[in-house]
Amino acid sequence: MAQKEKDICETLFMAIFIHQILEHTDVSSRIPGPTVGIVGGGQLGRMLAEAAAPLGVDVIVLDPTPDCPAAPVSRKQIVGEFDEKRAFDQLSSLADIVTFEIELADTALLTHVEQTHDVTVHPAPATLALIEDKLEQKRSLEAAGIAVPSFREVDTVAELQQALAEFGSVMLKARTGGYDGRGNVPVTDPDDASTALESIAGPAMAEEFIEFERELSVIAIQGADSVRTLPVGENIHQAEILRETVVPARTDETIQERAKEIAREVLAELDGRGVFGIELFETTSGEILVNEIAPRPHNSGHWSIEGAVTSQFEQHIRAIVGWPLGETSLLCPTVMCNLLATVEETCSARLQDVETLLEQPYCAPHWYGKDEARPLRKMGHVTLTASGRDISRNELLAQARDVREAVSFEDPTSA
Amino acid sequence: MAQKEKDICETLFMAIFIHQILEHTDVSSRIPGPTVGIVGGGQLGRMLAEAAAPLGVDVIVLDPTPDCPAAPVSRKQIVGEFDEKRAFDQLSSLADIVTFEIELADTALLTHVEQTHDVTVHPAPATLALIEDKLEQKRSLEAAGIAVPSFREVDTVAELQQALAEFGSVMLKARTGGYDGRGNVPVTDPDDASTALESIAGPAMAEEFIEFERELSVIAIQGADSVRTLPVGENIHQAEILRETVVPARTDETIQERAKEIAREVLAELDGRGVFGIELFETTSGEILVNEIAPRPHNSGHWSIEGAVTSQFEQHIRAIVGWPLGETSLLCPTVMCNLLATVEETCSARLQDVETLLEQPYCAPHWYGKDEARPLRKMGHVTLTASGRDISRNELLAQARDVREAVSFEDPTSA
Repeated sequence: MAQKEKDICETLFMAIFIHQILEHTDVSSRIPGPTVGIVGGGQLGRMLAEAAAPLGVDVIVLDPTPDCPAAPVSRKQIVGEFDEKRAFDQLSSLADIVTFEIELADTALLTHVEQTHDVTVHPAPATLALIEDKLEQKRSLEAAGIAVPSFREVDTVAELQQALAEFGSVMLKARTGGYDGRGNVPVTDPDDASTALESIAGPAMAEEFIEFERELSVIAIQGADSVRTLPVGENIHQAEILRETVVPARTDETIQERAKEIAREVLAELDGRGVFGIELFETTSGEILVNEIAPRPHNSGHWSIEGAVTSQFEQHIRAIVGWPLGETSLLCPTVMCNLLATVEETCSARLQDVETLLEQPYCAPHWYGKDEARPLRKMGHVTLTASGRDISRNELLAQARDVREAVSFEDPTSA
Repeated sequence: MAQKEKDICETLFMAIFIHQILEHTDVSSRIPGPTVGIVGGGQLGRMLAEAAAPLGVDVIVLDPTPDCPAAPVSRKQIVGEFDEKRAFDQLSSLADIVTFEIELADTALLTHVEQTHDVTVHPAPATLALIEDKLEQKRSLEAAGIAVPSFREVDTVAELQQALAEFGSVMLKARTGGYDGRGNVPVTDPDDASTALESIAGPAMAEEFIEFERELSVIAIQGADSVRTLPVGENIHQAEILRETVVPARTDETIQERAKEIAREVLAELDGRGVFGIELFETTSGEILVNEIAPRPHNSGHWSIEGAVTSQFEQHIRAIVGWPLGETSLLCPTVMCNLLATVEETCSARLQDVETLLEQPYCAPHWYGKDEARPLRKMGHVTLTASGRDISRNELLAQARDVREAVSFEDPTSA
């Protein structure tokens, strides 16, 4: 190699080296707080970063999609897969604490982060491992004496048909990887068993189909030395996707208190600090059953950004850092409404008629910074608050739906 | 040059080229909104970026300090001086709209941004030019029939002594560049005139020293087609630095209404959209005089993040983008308290006892991400809200001060 080439190479390597040193120095010297590494940089990562900033906490996200939703509001994005060791190593070298906002985070690599890098992961990787397998999740809740819908492991058509015979209708669920309705198939007719199992294409379980009065959810926070719960929300789903959350839930106070108690019982079974979203069924007979647990901030807790003294995202940051948890009081009746992409095919997102939304008073918009619209993809949400006005939850819900109807995502010039 | 060297160079240039193209593509394709370029990346830029994210607006900041407070929550920082053409050109090439959060922004370069790059600047550069010269600001207000303290241009000791003879005591002010007490000198004794003028070291003006009952401030927003005002705050200064803001101001409703009217009269004299912070004196005789105008979000409006339906930062983004302005209602009585660095000398900031602050319910922390503590530097603020509780503004103020006293910035190990 000629001397000149060597010089160029040397300069390049030196620049890279200095860049790396500077990068590491920067992220660890902020006040008051540590740098949090988040596996996953979708809207949950974005809203965690938004909540971390006022707390003086820097955020670094790991996500496979370049320029993911959280990237523009985070200190740095590491582009890497959720099971890519190199990316986890890099994240651990830059962060003081690691958390995750997606169940796809590889639990073995999260354990590696704790063991090799001496960086604490919250919640505990073992908790994620337990929760990400819906069958193990249910078994563990049942073993703890927590009421859940009846369920069976089903690996064959015969087993599924037996479950149908026992429960009438069932919800067939992929044991791992399902979300927003993907991986959930309602089955009633034994003749559909084979097709349903094929559509799951992996380990499955069947749950008795619950006739519920309403779906509730509790955002529960496990802090360093205390557990808190946010006011109980009422979830409205369509086609297995959350559409709206109404807070407080339109049900008896006693039911709400019982739901919070159950959430505390669930947290007692789980290791590691952080926010957990706990979805419940209030059955027609007044029972409360645990449907599913998310070991992270949850869509049904987005209302808390405007509706609670402390949002679920701030609570998560406080909890994983080990700081005192925030006040949980409800500020006022609140409705959260998801804005799903109203497109028939994947396309470049071009938002239309955003003015209608912005003109609505007491309506807080939250966009997730997604460039691509896909059918029913969560593009953002709005929160409508009563804020001292004499307005019912039903009216807030109607207003939220009107706002949602006014917005579209298709670029009219792209046809 | 050898072929190998040429290859290396070519690859490098290609990488830089692709990087630039990608960068530009990214920032302009988000939904719903445009990319905002902010001249200045201090705490105001940081809180603007925090407010922009939920609106789906990306932020790029220009600031001379590498890794400035706004950097970790913005898409990109351009490191450049506030009068550096190259930096303004780069900002304009990446942003759809440009604004500023610091009066030091060079007005000639802001005009250049509009004329050469066809990127709108809000508020108008001419408005900044008018406001940044305190003498011109006062002359223009007086010409518009808006009540201000009596004032004189003073260039010589004789002129200052004449002003003293006329007004009794005066506040001697640097015409440009002063903030947080720098550039403001109270003078009573004619023998001090020479020293006082020397300490200003530049063009100066003298204002009659006002005996005020209290200081008020109004955050006023000039939108695309409407003007709105936030509830009136009461400012408490010490040594010319804002310490606390109490909202609503502890004064008559009629005074508050009059303060808002005056704010609207002020805005009618100023071109360009955005948030303006208008500081007023309520005199002992019940008059209201305009003290100073800031053509940007203002420290005395920080309370609005928790205390108003829409914060001053969100209002600024809405205004400059041309979107409908947000609802301005007060949510509850609110006190904002600045956290100034309690250090005797400049040092690396190490925050102590942050737990006390975080344990206080209804107390929202805001850290500005500053690594270096300097005497009386603004490191963050806290906001205490009544949030439906039966608690007086005086009690909130006392709690805020207790929280402030509990926090320190000195690293005990650095001595």
